Amino acid sequence: FHALSGDQFATETNTVTGKDGWWSYAIGKGKAVDTNKYFVICANVLGGCMGSTGPKEIDPSTGKPYGLNFPVVTIKDMVSAQVHLLDYLGIKKTLSVIGGSMGGMQLLQFCATFPDKTFSAIPIACSASHSAQNIALNEVAREIIKKDENFHNGDYLAKGESPKKGLKAARMLGHITYLSESNMSKRFGRKLQNPENKMDADINYEVENYLQYKGEQFAKTFDANSYILMTKAMDSFDPAKDFDDDLVTCLQNVQAKLLIASFDSDWLFPKEYGLEIQMSAIKAGINSSYIELEGDYGHDSFLFYSDRYSAAVKHFLNSNE
Amino acid sequence: FHALSGDQFATETNTVTGKDGWWSYAIGKGKAVDTNKYFVICANVLGGCMGSTGPKEIDPSTGKPYGLNFPVVTIKDMVSAQVHLLDYLGIKKTLSVIGGSMGGMQLLQFCATFPDKTFSAIPIACSASHSAQNIALNEVAREIIKKDENFHNGDYLAKGESPKKGLKAARMLGHITYLSESNMSKRFGRKLQNPENKMDADINYEVENYLQYKGEQFAKTFDANSYILMTKAMDSFDPAKDFDDDLVTCLQNVQAKLLIASFDSDWLFPKEYGLEIQMSAIKAGINSSYIELEGDYGHDSFLFYSDRYSAAVKHFLNSNE
Repeated sequence: FHALSGDQFATETNTVTGKDGWWSYAIGKGKAVDTNKYFVICANVLGGCMGSTGPKEIDPSTGKPYGLNFPVVTIKDMVSAQVHLLDYLGIKKTLSVIGGSMGGMQLLQFCATFPDKTFSAIPIACSASHSAQNIALNEVAREIIKKDENFHNGDYLAKGESPKKGLKAARMLGHITYLSESNMSKRFGRKLQNPENKMDADINYEVENYLQYKGEQFAKTFDANSYILMTKAMDSFDPAKDFDDDLVTCLQNVQAKLLIASFDSDWLFPKEYGLEIQMSAIKAGINSSYIELEGDYGHDSFLFYSDRYSAAVKHFLNSNE
Repeated sequence: FHALSGDQFATETNTVTGKDGWWSYAIGKGKAVDTNKYFVICANVLGGCMGSTGPKEIDPSTGKPYGLNFPVVTIKDMVSAQVHLLDYLGIKKTLSVIGGSMGGMQLLQFCATFPDKTFSAIPIACSASHSAQNIALNEVAREIIKKDENFHNGDYLAKGESPKKGLKAARMLGHITYLSESNMSKRFGRKLQNPENKMDADINYEVENYLQYKGEQFAKTFDANSYILMTKAMDSFDPAKDFDDDLVTCLQNVQAKLLIASFDSDWLFPKEYGLEIQMSAIKAGINSSYIELEGDYGHDSFLFYSDRYSAAVKHFLNSNE
């Protein structure tokens, strides 16, 4: 299950961007998720903009893109769509479901709502619900996008436009939260930007240029309404809510064996939140392990290779065969 | 010396907002900065928009507001303006200079550039230079403001407009960085917003509404060009730069006795940065103390009362009489 800005190209070449898939180092022959033994399925989430049905698709009843008329999508809806896919493929139960960030949220929901659909699950760099700070950061991103003059209350596609400026700035903000303060200091520090490659005349520092570039690239391909829809889905994610706000009761439904992984430098989903899931799993009496991993990249560490991370995934999957 | 969004109303009533000055609890008769004994001066910074000369003032050579034609202002320029004020008032040397955040930066510069102008200084919740993350967050804020369609490349005042939407979103982002994750969790958590007071129909959570409100209030009174100018001044602040990038050599010029204060919950200017100034001060052989304070409000803790904080300021000032 992929994250907010991820897609179905978990490995091999992403045919849209021409780059490697987001978990290429982990999925393949002999890798952590060994395709000599396992068959990997990854689908774009419901509400996304890279293949699944989302706000940029045509509403058959109007002949125009759905835009903001697309129904509200929850993490539970995303997971239900995944189960429809498994049913369609004739798969009764998966060996494991794996995902980081929004992907991790999906599989917590998957295990609680469809307990007989997987033998195991690896939720990575996620939490059982968004904190006030997570919600606040998403609200700023949505505010920036919606106030772009080309947003047109979500109807930009029908007008042949796109709120690219807003989407760019929202992604710049997101990018800061995906890295760690120490990683940014090591990588950029206060280095001045080479004038030849400046994205904008007002730029002084390399870190400014990097964010401008990353934001611009993202705004070229991503759909703004999908971004709003998915951040709302993450904000409202709270599987314990159906169980009197008790995560322990919620997890008592889980039959899958869990491996919960957090990264020490992640400040968007701090390790305390991973540990909270593990503590609740212990109280719920389910089969669960927790691992705190060193990661140089903050929240984005779940997308990068490390020996311990790779070994943890590999051995956990082996133990479930 | 006030912070980015501060002004000359350090105490008593702010005549613009009708609220208490930003350090009212600390400045007054019998308070930490005891006005029975001390005379307090606070001026709006050069480049600001609350009284001093800044981008919204009229350029006599064109008859129009300066806008982005206002010269680049550095922290050193701000401090030079403060010295002009002291000269004008006939004050040779102050008992102390005090400031938090951008105010703290100013007084580090003040002590290094004008070593004979003060007996002591209290830099609070600041650093000797912005980290890559600080610069990155400011660049997102500037990007949001500049891409507002009413920004008109900084000439909005001449057109009778204001990039309020951009300024609002920039302030919403700033506000998140001024608080701490745990403070936001305690104060808002995942509480749903009462529908009657919603700032916007799409709002679900209290924390979203709070940020929307705070951002909107700020955008009503603050000048966007001043915001850009001051964040640039903070980003470029680096007093060690004139001394082969060596903060120790820089601090060797300081004659003032320092009290450096940081707050444990501040993630915008983490306590490590205050401690770095203190370590350099020790190496420089100057008279300096460091205090790490508990603060419930993240970076904004420097604006709130606590017994230890208040006592530290009071006793340090007494010791310099």
